[in-house]
Amino acid sequence: MEQGQAPSEKPGRPPAQSTLHEVRTAENSAAYLLPKVQSMKEANPHLTLLDVGAGSGTISVSFAQLIPDGHVTGVDLNPDILPRARAVAEMAGVENIDFQQGSVYKLPFADETFDVTCCHQVLIHIGTPWDALREMLRVTKRGGIVAAREGDYETECVWPDLPYLSKFHKLMAGLMSAGGGTPTAGRQLVSWALKAGAEPSQITLSYSPSSYDTPSRRKICSQGLCDQLRGGSMRAKALKFGLGSEDDFEQMAAAWEEWAKRDDASLAMLNGEILVQK
Amino acid sequence: MEQGQAPSEKPGRPPAQSTLHEVRTAENSAAYLLPKVQSMKEANPHLTLLDVGAGSGTISVSFAQLIPDGHVTGVDLNPDILPRARAVAEMAGVENIDFQQGSVYKLPFADETFDVTCCHQVLIHIGTPWDALREMLRVTKRGGIVAAREGDYETECVWPDLPYLSKFHKLMAGLMSAGGGTPTAGRQLVSWALKAGAEPSQITLSYSPSSYDTPSRRKICSQGLCDQLRGGSMRAKALKFGLGSEDDFEQMAAAWEEWAKRDDASLAMLNGEILVQK
Repeated sequence: MEQGQAPSEKPGRPPAQSTLHEVRTAENSAAYLLPKVQSMKEANPHLTLLDVGAGSGTISVSFAQLIPDGHVTGVDLNPDILPRARAVAEMAGVENIDFQQGSVYKLPFADETFDVTCCHQVLIHIGTPWDALREMLRVTKRGGIVAAREGDYETECVWPDLPYLSKFHKLMAGLMSAGGGTPTAGRQLVSWALKAGAEPSQITLSYSPSSYDTPSRRKICSQGLCDQLRGGSMRAKALKFGLGSEDDFEQMAAAWEEWAKRDDASLAMLNGEILVQK
Repeated sequence: MEQGQAPSEKPGRPPAQSTLHEVRTAENSAAYLLPKVQSMKEANPHLTLLDVGAGSGTISVSFAQLIPDGHVTGVDLNPDILPRARAVAEMAGVENIDFQQGSVYKLPFADETFDVTCCHQVLIHIGTPWDALREMLRVTKRGGIVAAREGDYETECVWPDLPYLSKFHKLMAGLMSAGGGTPTAGRQLVSWALKAGAEPSQITLSYSPSSYDTPSRRKICSQGLCDQLRGGSMRAKALKFGLGSEDDFEQMAAAWEEWAKRDDASLAMLNGEILVQK
Protein backbone atom coordinates (compact mmCIF):
# COMPACT_ATOMS: atom_id res chain seq x y z
CA MET A 1 0.00 0.00 0.00
CA GLU A 2 1.14 3.55 -0.61
CA GLN A 3 2.07 5.88 2.17
CA GLY A 4 -0.83 7.67 3.76
CA GLN A 5 -3.67 5.45 2.59
CA ALA A 6 -6.83 5.08 4.63
CA PRO A 7 -7.12 2.47 7.37
CA SER A 8 -8.50 -0.99 6.88
CA GLU A 9 -12.05 -1.15 8.18
CA LYS A 10 -11.48 -4.54 9.83
CA PRO A 11 -8.15 -5.88 11.05
CA GLY A 12 -7.27 -8.95 9.06
CA ARG A 13 -9.60 -7.97 6.21
CA PRO A 14 -8.38 -6.01 3.20
CA PRO A 15 -9.72 -2.47 2.72
CA ALA A 16 -11.60 -1.85 -0.56
CA GLN A 17 -8.62 -0.19 -2.22
CA SER A 18 -6.37 -3.15 -1.47
CA THR A 19 -8.05 -5.56 -3.90
CA LEU A 20 -5.50 -4.58 -6.54
CA HIS A 21 -2.56 -4.21 -4.15
CA GLU A 22 -2.93 -7.70 -2.67
CA VAL A 23 -2.23 -9.47 -5.97
CA ARG A 24 1.27 -8.01 -5.77
CA THR A 25 4.16 -10.36 -5.02
CA ALA A 26 7.94 -10.12 -5.25
CA GLU A 27 7.68 -12.23 -8.42
CA ASN A 28 5.23 -9.95 -10.28
CA SER A 29 6.30 -6.62 -8.76
CA ALA A 30 10.02 -6.92 -8.04
CA ALA A 31 11.38 -9.26 -10.73
CA TYR A 32 14.16 -6.73 -11.43
CA LEU A 33 15.44 -7.23 -7.86
CA LEU A 34 15.13 -11.03 -7.57
CA PRO A 35 18.42 -12.07 -9.27
CA LYS A 36 20.29 -9.69 -6.94
CA VAL A 37 18.52 -11.05 -3.83
CA GLN A 38 19.22 -14.60 -5.04
CA SER A 39 22.95 -13.98 -5.47
CA MET A 40 23.19 -12.14 -2.13
CA LYS A 41 21.36 -15.05 -0.46
CA GLU A 42 23.88 -17.53 -1.86
CA ALA A 43 26.67 -15.51 -0.20
CA ASN A 44 24.69 -14.98 3.02
CA PRO A 45 21.49 -16.98 3.74
CA HIS A 46 20.79 -14.75 6.76
CA LEU A 47 19.95 -11.76 4.60
CA THR A 48 17.87 -8.92 6.09
CA LEU A 49 15.43 -7.07 3.89
CA LEU A 50 13.39 -3.94 4.60
CA ASP A 51 10.20 -3.36 2.57
CA VAL A 52 9.23 0.31 2.87
CA GLY A 53 5.54 1.19 2.41
CA ALA A 54 4.69 -2.48 2.81
CA GLY A 55 0.91 -1.95 3.07
CA SER A 56 -0.93 -5.27 3.13
CA GLY A 57 2.43 -7.01 3.08
CA THR A 58 1.97 -9.37 0.14
CA ILE A 59 5.30 -8.37 -1.44
CA SER A 60 7.08 -8.50 1.95
CA VAL A 61 5.69 -11.99 2.64
CA SER A 62 6.81 -13.34 -0.72
CA PHE A 63 10.31 -11.94 -0.10
CA ALA A 64 10.31 -13.70 3.30
CA GLN A 65 9.48 -16.96 1.51
CA LEU A 66 12.42 -16.40 -0.85
CA ILE A 67 14.89 -15.95 2.05
CA PRO A 68 13.68 -18.55 4.58
CA ASP A 69 16.91 -18.24 6.64
CA GLY A 70 16.81 -14.44 6.44
CA HIS A 71 14.42 -11.88 7.87
CA VAL A 72 12.04 -9.33 6.36
CA THR A 73 10.82 -6.16 8.03
CA GLY A 74 7.83 -4.33 6.57
CA VAL A 75 7.22 -0.69 7.43
CA ASP A 76 4.17 1.42 6.66
CA LEU A 77 3.21 4.95 7.65
CA ASN A 78 -0.35 3.79 8.35
CA PRO A 79 -0.57 1.80 11.61
CA ASP A 80 -4.08 0.60 10.72
CA ILE A 81 -2.80 -1.56 7.85
CA LEU A 82 -0.36 -3.48 10.07
CA PRO A 83 -2.92 -6.05 11.39
CA ARG A 84 -3.81 -6.90 7.79
CA ALA A 85 -0.14 -7.37 6.88
CA ARG A 86 0.38 -9.62 9.92
CA ALA A 87 -2.70 -11.63 8.93
CA VAL A 88 -1.35 -12.04 5.39
CA ALA A 89 1.93 -13.38 6.83
CA GLU A 90 0.11 -15.72 9.20
CA MET A 91 -2.16 -17.08 6.45
CA ALA A 92 0.98 -17.82 4.39
CA GLY A 93 2.63 -19.53 7.36
CA VAL A 94 5.53 -17.07 7.22
CA GLU A 95 7.32 -16.38 10.51
CA ASN A 96 10.59 -14.71 9.49
CA ILE A 97 8.88 -11.34 9.19
CA ASP A 98 7.73 -8.40 11.27
CA PHE A 99 5.74 -5.28 10.50
CA GLN A 100 6.23 -1.88 12.12
CA GLN A 101 4.85 1.61 11.79
CA GLY A 102 7.27 4.13 10.33
CA SER A 103 7.82 6.91 7.81
CA VAL A 104 10.08 6.52 4.80
CA TYR A 105 11.45 9.96 5.70
CA LYS A 106 12.53 8.81 9.16
CA LEU A 107 12.96 5.06 9.25
CA PRO A 108 13.10 3.70 12.82
CA PHE A 109 16.42 1.87 12.31
CA ALA A 110 20.12 2.51 12.90
CA ASP A 111 22.51 3.24 10.02
CA GLU A 112 23.51 0.18 7.96
CA THR A 113 20.93 -2.23 9.37
CA PHE A 114 19.65 -4.04 6.22
CA ASP A 115 21.23 -5.88 3.29
CA VAL A 116 18.35 -4.92 0.99
CA THR A 117 16.00 -1.94 1.31
CA CYS A 118 13.23 -1.74 -1.24
CA CYS A 119 9.93 -0.04 -2.02
CA HIS A 120 7.16 -0.43 -4.59
CA GLN A 121 4.82 2.39 -5.69
CA VAL A 122 5.81 4.56 -2.73
CA LEU A 123 8.04 7.34 -4.15
CA ILE A 124 5.36 8.23 -6.74
CA HIS A 125 3.07 9.38 -3.91
CA ILE A 126 5.39 11.56 -1.81
CA GLY A 127 6.70 15.11 -2.03
CA THR A 128 10.48 14.69 -1.78
CA PRO A 129 11.29 11.19 -2.99
CA TRP A 130 15.05 11.89 -3.00
CA ASP A 131 14.87 12.36 0.80
CA ALA A 132 13.18 8.96 1.04
CA LEU A 133 15.94 7.37 -1.08
CA ARG A 134 18.62 9.05 1.06
CA GLU A 135 16.97 7.57 4.18
CA MET A 136 16.74 4.14 2.52
CA LEU A 137 20.46 4.38 1.69
CA ARG A 138 21.23 5.32 5.29
CA VAL A 139 19.69 2.16 6.79
CA THR A 140 21.34 -0.08 4.17
CA LYS A 141 24.65 -1.84 4.81
CA ARG A 142 27.73 -1.09 2.69
CA GLY A 143 27.69 -3.65 -0.10
CA GLY A 144 23.89 -3.77 0.16
CA ILE A 145 21.20 -2.69 -2.28
CA VAL A 146 18.49 -0.04 -2.36
CA ALA A 147 15.74 -0.79 -4.87
CA ALA A 148 12.64 1.06 -6.03
CA ARG A 149 9.95 0.33 -8.62
CA GLU A 150 7.57 3.16 -9.41
CA GLY A 151 4.92 3.62 -12.05
CA ASP A 152 5.03 6.27 -14.72
CA TYR A 153 1.39 7.14 -14.86
CA GLU A 154 1.68 9.22 -18.02
CA THR A 155 2.63 6.05 -19.92
CA GLU A 156 -0.67 4.36 -19.06
CA CYS A 157 -2.42 3.11 -22.18
CA VAL A 158 -5.97 1.84 -22.23
CA TRP A 159 -8.12 0.38 -24.99
CA PRO A 160 -10.90 0.83 -25.99
CA ASP A 161 -10.73 4.59 -25.76
CA LEU A 162 -13.94 5.12 -23.71
CA PRO A 163 -14.41 8.78 -22.68
CA TYR A 164 -14.87 8.03 -18.97
CA LEU A 165 -11.65 6.01 -18.91
CA SER A 166 -9.77 9.12 -20.11
CA LYS A 167 -11.52 11.09 -17.37
CA PHE A 168 -10.47 8.44 -14.86
CA HIS A 169 -6.86 8.78 -16.02
CA LYS A 170 -7.00 12.54 -15.41
CA LEU A 171 -8.63 11.95 -12.02
CA MET A 172 -5.81 9.64 -10.93
CA ALA A 173 -3.07 12.00 -12.16
CA GLY A 174 -4.88 14.88 -10.43
CA LEU A 175 -5.13 12.92 -7.19
CA MET A 176 -1.44 12.06 -7.27
CA SER A 177 -0.43 15.67 -7.89
CA ALA A 178 -2.91 17.04 -5.31
CA GLY A 179 -1.41 14.66 -2.75
CA GLY A 180 2.11 15.96 -3.50
CA GLY A 181 3.13 13.00 -5.69
CA THR A 182 4.71 12.76 -9.15
CA PRO A 183 2.72 11.00 -11.89
CA THR A 184 5.90 10.70 -14.00
CA ALA A 185 7.90 9.04 -11.19
CA GLY A 186 9.16 6.10 -13.28
CA ARG A 187 11.23 8.17 -15.66
CA GLN A 188 12.70 10.30 -12.82
CA LEU A 189 14.10 7.56 -10.58
CA VAL A 190 17.72 8.02 -11.65
CA SER A 191 17.53 11.78 -11.17
CA TRP A 192 16.12 11.22 -7.67
CA ALA A 193 18.82 8.69 -6.77
CA LEU A 194 21.51 11.17 -7.89
CA LYS A 195 19.85 13.87 -5.77
CA ALA A 196 19.92 11.42 -2.84
CA GLY A 197 23.71 11.25 -3.16
CA ALA A 198 24.23 8.11 -5.30
CA GLU A 199 26.91 8.11 -7.99
CA PRO A 200 25.87 7.27 -11.58
CA SER A 201 28.05 4.14 -11.47
CA GLN A 202 26.06 2.81 -8.49
CA ILE A 203 22.68 3.00 -10.30
CA THR A 204 21.13 0.42 -12.64
CA LEU A 205 17.94 1.49 -14.41
CA SER A 206 15.35 -0.76 -16.04
CA TYR A 207 11.70 -0.68 -17.03
CA SER A 208 8.94 -3.27 -16.91
CA PRO A 209 5.23 -3.17 -17.68
CA SER A 210 2.23 -3.65 -15.46
CA SER A 211 -0.59 -4.94 -17.60
CA TYR A 212 -4.06 -6.40 -17.46
CA ASP A 213 -4.03 -8.59 -20.51
CA THR A 214 -6.27 -11.57 -19.74
CA PRO A 215 -10.03 -11.65 -19.00
CA SER A 216 -9.45 -12.76 -15.39
CA ARG A 217 -6.89 -10.02 -14.72
CA ARG A 218 -9.17 -7.45 -16.33
CA LYS A 219 -11.99 -8.54 -14.04
CA ILE A 220 -9.79 -8.15 -10.93
CA CYS A 221 -8.66 -4.74 -12.16
CA SER A 222 -12.18 -3.53 -12.96
CA GLN A 223 -13.58 -4.75 -9.63
CA GLY A 224 -10.75 -3.11 -7.72
CA LEU A 225 -11.21 0.22 -9.49
CA CYS A 226 -15.02 0.08 -9.14
CA ASP A 227 -14.63 -0.58 -5.39
CA GLN A 228 -12.40 2.47 -5.13
CA LEU A 229 -14.71 4.65 -7.21
CA ARG A 230 -17.83 3.62 -5.31
CA GLY A 231 -16.56 3.54 -1.75
CA GLY A 232 -12.82 3.59 -1.14
CA SER A 233 -10.53 6.28 0.22
CA MET A 234 -9.66 7.38 -3.32
CA ARG A 235 -13.25 8.49 -3.84
CA ALA A 236 -13.20 10.40 -0.53
CA LYS A 237 -9.94 12.15 -1.49
CA ALA A 238 -11.19 13.01 -4.98
CA LEU A 239 -14.37 14.56 -3.52
CA LYS A 240 -12.28 16.47 -0.97
CA PHE A 241 -10.00 17.89 -3.69
CA GLY A 242 -12.99 18.71 -5.95
CA LEU A 243 -11.66 16.44 -8.72
CA GLY A 244 -15.05 15.09 -9.76
CA SER A 245 -18.68 14.55 -8.77
CA GLU A 246 -20.39 11.43 -7.47
CA ASP A 247 -22.03 11.09 -10.88
CA ASP A 248 -18.61 11.23 -12.57
CA PHE A 249 -17.32 8.42 -10.36
CA GLU A 250 -20.36 6.27 -11.13
CA GLN A 251 -19.85 6.84 -14.87
CA MET A 252 -16.18 5.93 -14.52
CA ALA A 253 -17.06 2.73 -12.64
CA ALA A 254 -19.60 1.85 -15.35
CA ALA A 255 -16.91 2.45 -18.01
CA TRP A 256 -14.52 0.06 -16.21
CA GLU A 257 -17.30 -2.55 -16.04
CA GLU A 258 -17.88 -2.19 -19.78
CA TRP A 259 -14.11 -2.33 -20.42
CA ALA A 260 -13.75 -5.60 -18.49
CA LYS A 261 -16.34 -7.25 -20.73
CA ARG A 262 -14.77 -6.22 -24.02
CA ASP A 263 -12.75 -8.79 -26.00
CA ASP A 264 -10.44 -6.04 -27.28
CA ALA A 265 -9.77 -4.50 -23.86
CA SER A 266 -6.24 -3.77 -22.75
CA LEU A 267 -4.52 -1.74 -20.04
CA ALA A 268 -0.80 -1.31 -19.45
CA MET A 269 1.71 1.06 -17.87
CA LEU A 270 5.48 1.33 -17.66
CA ASN A 271 7.28 1.15 -14.33
CA GLY A 272 10.76 2.52 -13.82
CA GLU A 273 13.09 0.41 -11.63
CA ILE A 274 16.39 1.29 -10.00
CA LEU A 275 18.96 -0.75 -8.14
CA VAL A 276 21.43 1.35 -6.17
CA GLN A 277 24.53 -0.53 -5.05
CA LYS A 278 25.71 0.95 -1.76
CA MET B 1 12.88 -1.53 -41.31
CA GLU B 2 9.37 -0.27 -41.67
CA GLN B 3 7.42 -0.58 -44.88
CA GLY B 4 8.10 2.21 -47.35
CA GLN B 5 11.36 3.54 -45.94
CA ALA B 6 13.91 5.21 -48.19
CA PRO B 7 16.51 3.18 -50.06
CA SER B 8 19.96 2.42 -48.78
CA GLU B 9 22.49 4.67 -50.46
CA LYS B 10 24.97 1.80 -50.94
CA PRO B 11 24.08 -1.87 -51.18
CA GLY B 12 25.60 -3.66 -48.24
CA ARG B 13 25.85 -0.45 -46.21
CA PRO B 14 23.14 0.62 -43.78
CA PRO B 15 21.19 3.79 -44.60
CA ALA B 16 21.39 6.55 -41.96
CA GLN B 17 18.02 5.67 -40.46
CA SER B 18 19.01 2.04 -39.95
CA THR B 19 21.54 2.71 -37.19
CA LEU B 20 18.84 2.08 -34.63
CA HIS B 21 17.08 -0.69 -36.55
CA GLU B 22 20.20 -2.80 -36.97
CA VAL B 23 20.65 -3.36 -33.23
CA ARG B 24 17.38 -5.29 -33.32
CA THR B 25 17.51 -9.06 -32.90
CA ALA B 26 14.95 -11.79 -32.21
CA GLU B 27 16.27 -11.83 -28.64
CA ASN B 28 15.76 -8.13 -27.91
CA SER B 29 12.75 -7.52 -30.17
CA ALA B 30 10.78 -10.78 -30.23
CA ALA B 31 11.37 -12.32 -26.79
CA TYR B 32 7.58 -12.85 -26.46
CA LEU B 33 7.71 -15.18 -29.50
CA LEU B 34 10.87 -17.17 -28.68
CA PRO B 35 9.38 -19.77 -26.28
CA LYS B 36 6.73 -20.58 -28.92
CA VAL B 37 9.32 -20.91 -31.71
CA GLN B 38 11.46 -23.06 -29.42
CA SER B 39 8.61 -25.48 -28.64
CA MET B 40 7.53 -25.62 -32.30
CA LYS B 41 11.15 -26.35 -33.30
CA GLU B 42 11.31 -29.26 -30.86
CA ALA B 43 8.26 -30.78 -32.61
CA ASN B 44 9.56 -29.92 -36.09
CA PRO B 45 13.19 -28.79 -36.67
CA HIS B 46 12.34 -27.87 -40.27
CA LEU B 47 10.23 -24.90 -39.23
CA THR B 48 9.53 -22.16 -41.78
CA LEU B 49 9.29 -18.56 -40.61
CA LEU B 50 8.25 -15.43 -42.51
CA ASP B 51 9.46 -12.05 -41.25
CA VAL B 52 7.28 -9.33 -42.76
CA GLY B 53 8.82 -5.85 -43.15
CA ALA B 54 12.25 -7.37 -42.56
CA GLY B 55 14.21 -4.24 -43.52
CA SER B 56 17.92 -4.71 -42.86
CA GLY B 57 17.18 -8.26 -41.79
CA THR B 58 18.86 -8.37 -38.39
CA ILE B 59 15.79 -9.90 -36.71
CA SER B 60 15.28 -12.36 -39.60
CA VAL B 61 18.94 -13.45 -39.43
CA SER B 62 18.79 -14.07 -35.68
CA PHE B 63 15.64 -16.17 -36.18
CA ALA B 64 17.50 -18.18 -38.86
CA GLN B 65 20.27 -18.84 -36.32
CA LEU B 66 17.66 -20.08 -33.83
CA ILE B 67 16.21 -22.60 -36.34
CA PRO B 68 19.34 -23.88 -38.13
CA ASP B 69 17.42 -26.80 -39.69
CA GLY B 70 14.52 -24.54 -40.64
CA HIS B 71 14.22 -21.68 -43.10
CA VAL B 72 13.50 -17.96 -42.77
CA THR B 73 12.06 -15.72 -45.48
CA GLY B 74 12.29 -11.96 -45.07
CA VAL B 75 9.98 -9.71 -47.07
CA ASP B 76 10.13 -5.93 -47.43
CA LEU B 77 8.14 -3.49 -49.55
CA ASN B 78 11.32 -1.62 -50.39
CA PRO B 79 13.49 -3.53 -52.90
CA ASP B 80 16.47 -1.24 -52.22
CA ILE B 81 16.91 -2.58 -48.69
CA LEU B 82 17.22 -6.22 -49.85
CA PRO B 83 20.96 -6.09 -50.72
CA ARG B 84 21.65 -4.78 -47.20
CA ALA B 85 19.60 -7.61 -45.66
CA ARG B 86 21.46 -10.19 -47.77
CA ALA B 87 24.79 -8.65 -46.71
CA VAL B 88 23.74 -8.85 -43.03
CA ALA B 89 22.96 -12.57 -43.51
CA GLU B 90 26.24 -13.19 -45.31
CA MET B 91 28.28 -11.39 -42.65
CA ALA B 92 26.60 -13.61 -40.03
CA GLY B 93 27.35 -16.73 -42.09
CA VAL B 94 23.64 -17.55 -42.25
CA GLU B 95 22.47 -19.53 -45.30
CA ASN B 96 19.00 -20.81 -44.34
CA ILE B 97 17.43 -17.50 -45.31
CA ASP B 98 16.17 -15.57 -48.33
CA PHE B 99 14.89 -12.05 -48.83
CA GLN B 100 12.20 -10.98 -51.29
CA GLN B 101 10.30 -7.87 -52.23
CA GLY B 102 6.65 -7.90 -51.23
CA SER B 103 3.79 -5.99 -49.60
CA VAL B 104 2.24 -7.06 -46.30
CA TYR B 105 -1.13 -6.46 -47.98
CA LYS B 106 -0.39 -8.97 -50.74
CA LEU B 107 2.25 -11.44 -49.64
CA PRO B 108 3.74 -13.38 -52.59
CA PHE B 109 3.00 -16.81 -51.07
CA ALA B 110 0.32 -19.49 -51.27
CA ASP B 111 -2.15 -20.06 -48.41
CA GLU B 112 -0.71 -21.95 -45.42
CA THR B 113 2.96 -21.72 -46.39
CA PHE B 114 4.67 -20.82 -43.08
CA ASP B 115 4.71 -22.19 -39.54
CA VAL B 116 5.41 -18.75 -38.09
CA THR B 117 4.60 -15.37 -39.63
CA CYS B 118 5.79 -12.34 -37.69
CA CYS B 119 6.39 -8.63 -37.95
CA HIS B 120 8.04 -5.94 -35.81
CA GLN B 121 7.15 -2.24 -35.95
CA VAL B 122 5.29 -2.65 -39.25
CA LEU B 123 1.56 -2.40 -38.42
CA ILE B 124 2.16 0.94 -36.62
CA HIS B 125 3.08 2.52 -39.97
CA ILE B 126 0.29 1.34 -42.25
CA GLY B 127 -3.30 2.38 -42.91
CA THR B 128 -5.29 -0.84 -42.47
CA PRO B 129 -3.26 -3.09 -40.16
CA TRP B 130 -6.13 -5.58 -39.82
CA ASP B 131 -5.82 -6.31 -43.56
CA ALA B 132 -2.12 -6.99 -43.02
CA LEU B 133 -2.91 -9.37 -40.14
CA ARG B 134 -5.55 -11.14 -42.27
CA GLU B 135 -2.94 -11.62 -45.00
CA MET B 136 -0.38 -12.86 -42.46
CA LEU B 137 -2.98 -15.37 -41.19
CA ARG B 138 -3.66 -16.51 -44.77
CA VAL B 139 -0.05 -17.53 -45.47
CA THR B 140 0.29 -19.28 -42.07
CA LYS B 141 -0.31 -23.02 -41.68
CA ARG B 142 -3.09 -24.33 -39.43
CA GLY B 143 -1.50 -24.92 -36.06
CA GLY B 144 0.98 -22.14 -36.84
CA ILE B 145 1.45 -18.74 -35.25
CA VAL B 146 1.07 -15.13 -36.37
CA ALA B 147 2.98 -12.68 -34.18
CA ALA B 148 3.29 -8.90 -34.10
CA ARG B 149 5.15 -6.48 -31.82
CA GLU B 150 4.31 -2.82 -32.27
CA GLY B 151 5.20 0.29 -30.31
CA ASP B 152 2.71 2.48 -28.55
CA TYR B 153 4.27 5.82 -29.21
CA GLU B 154 2.01 7.70 -26.81
CA THR B 155 3.59 5.74 -23.94
CA GLU B 156 7.05 7.09 -24.72
CA CYS B 157 8.65 8.68 -21.67
CA VAL B 158 11.81 10.73 -21.77
CA TRP B 159 13.85 12.39 -19.05
CA PRO B 160 15.09 15.08 -18.64
CA ASP B 161 12.12 16.99 -19.95
CA LEU B 162 13.98 19.16 -22.51
CA PRO B 163 11.60 21.27 -24.64
CA TYR B 164 13.02 20.10 -27.98
CA LEU B 165 12.59 16.46 -26.97
CA SER B 166 8.86 17.11 -26.49
CA LYS B 167 8.83 18.76 -29.92
CA PHE B 168 10.59 15.70 -31.35
CA HIS B 169 7.93 13.46 -29.82
CA LYS B 170 5.20 15.50 -31.53
CA LEU B 171 7.15 15.41 -34.80
CA MET B 172 7.36 11.62 -34.73
CA ALA B 173 3.66 11.19 -33.88
CA GLY B 174 2.81 13.70 -36.63
CA LEU B 175 4.95 11.82 -39.14
CA MET B 176 3.32 8.50 -38.25
CA SER B 177 -0.18 9.94 -38.59
CA ALA B 178 0.67 11.85 -41.80
CA GLY B 179 1.96 8.60 -43.28
CA GLY B 180 -1.34 6.84 -42.45
CA GLY B 181 0.00 5.04 -39.37
CA THR B 182 -1.31 4.72 -35.80
CA PRO B 183 0.89 6.10 -32.98
CA THR B 184 -1.14 4.08 -30.43
CA ALA B 185 -0.70 0.77 -32.29
CA GLY B 186 0.49 -1.25 -29.27
CA ARG B 187 -2.75 -0.97 -27.31
CA GLN B 188 -4.88 -1.74 -30.41
CA LEU B 189 -3.30 -5.02 -31.50
CA VAL B 190 -6.04 -7.25 -30.10
CA SER B 191 -8.77 -5.14 -31.70
CA TRP B 192 -6.95 -5.40 -35.04
CA ALA B 193 -6.53 -9.17 -34.74
CA LEU B 194 -10.27 -9.52 -34.02
CA LYS B 195 -11.02 -7.35 -37.06
CA ALA B 196 -8.75 -9.65 -39.10
CA GLY B 197 -10.99 -12.59 -38.18
CA ALA B 198 -9.22 -14.11 -35.17
CA GLU B 199 -11.27 -15.38 -32.22
CA PRO B 200 -10.51 -13.99 -28.74
CA SER B 201 -9.41 -17.46 -27.60
CA GLN B 202 -6.70 -17.55 -30.30
CA ILE B 203 -5.04 -14.30 -29.15
CA THR B 204 -2.43 -13.85 -26.41
CA LEU B 205 -1.53 -10.27 -25.53
CA SER B 206 1.56 -9.05 -23.71
CA TYR B 207 3.62 -5.89 -23.34
CA SER B 208 7.33 -5.24 -23.10
CA PRO B 209 9.42 -2.10 -22.93
CA SER B 210 11.98 -0.69 -25.32
CA SER B 211 14.41 1.39 -23.33
CA TYR B 212 17.70 3.21 -23.55
CA ASP B 213 18.92 2.87 -20.02
CA THR B 214 22.71 2.70 -20.17
CA PRO B 215 25.22 5.33 -21.39
CA SER B 216 26.26 3.19 -24.38
CA ARG B 217 22.65 2.54 -25.46
CA ARG B 218 21.83 6.22 -25.03
CA LYS B 219 24.78 7.12 -27.28
CA ILE B 220 23.58 4.70 -30.01
CA CYS B 221 20.06 6.12 -29.70
CA SER B 222 21.18 9.74 -29.82
CA GLN B 223 23.49 9.16 -32.79
CA GLY B 224 20.75 7.33 -34.70
CA LEU B 225 18.20 10.08 -34.08
CA CYS B 226 20.71 12.83 -34.91
CA ASP B 227 21.54 11.06 -38.20
CA GLN B 228 17.85 10.96 -39.04
CA LEU B 229 17.27 14.59 -38.05
CA ARG B 230 20.28 15.85 -39.98
CA GLY B 231 20.10 13.78 -43.15
CA GLY B 232 17.84 10.73 -43.20
CA SER B 233 14.55 10.08 -44.96
CA MET B 234 12.62 11.06 -41.81
CA ARG B 235 13.92 14.61 -42.18
CA ALA B 236 12.90 14.68 -45.84
CA LYS B 237 9.39 13.41 -45.00
CA ALA B 238 8.99 15.90 -42.13
CA LEU B 239 9.97 18.79 -44.41
CA LYS B 240 7.60 17.50 -47.11
CA PHE B 241 4.67 17.32 -44.64
CA GLY B 242 5.56 20.76 -43.18
CA LEU B 243 6.07 19.28 -39.70
CA GLY B 244 9.05 21.45 -38.81
CA SER B 245 11.85 23.66 -40.09
CA GLU B 246 15.52 22.85 -40.64
CA ASP B 247 16.29 24.94 -37.56
CA ASP B 248 13.80 22.89 -35.50
CA PHE B 249 15.49 19.65 -36.57
CA GLU B 250 18.92 21.02 -35.65
CA GLN B 251 17.62 22.06 -32.21
CA MET B 252 16.10 18.59 -31.74
CA ALA B 253 19.40 16.94 -32.69
CA ALA B 254 21.25 19.21 -30.23
CA ALA B 255 18.73 18.25 -27.52
CA TRP B 256 19.37 14.53 -28.17
CA GLU B 257 23.12 15.16 -27.94
CA GLU B 258 22.64 16.94 -24.61
CA TRP B 259 20.33 14.14 -23.43
CA ALA B 260 22.92 11.44 -24.21
CA LYS B 261 25.49 13.20 -21.98
CA ARG B 262 23.21 13.55 -18.96
CA ASP B 263 23.65 11.13 -16.03
CA ASP B 264 19.91 11.26 -15.30
CA ALA B 265 18.82 10.58 -18.90
CA SER B 266 16.25 7.94 -19.65
CA LEU B 267 14.00 6.94 -22.57
CA ALA B 268 11.46 4.13 -22.71
CA MET B 269 8.31 3.06 -24.53
CA LEU B 270 5.80 0.23 -24.24
CA ASN B 271 5.33 -2.25 -27.07
CA GLY B 272 2.19 -4.33 -27.46
CA GLU B 273 2.70 -7.95 -28.55
CA ILE B 274 0.22 -10.50 -29.84
CA LEU B 275 0.48 -14.18 -30.62
CA VAL B 276 -2.38 -15.49 -32.74
CA GLN B 277 -2.69 -19.28 -32.78
CA LYS B 278 -4.08 -20.33 -36.15
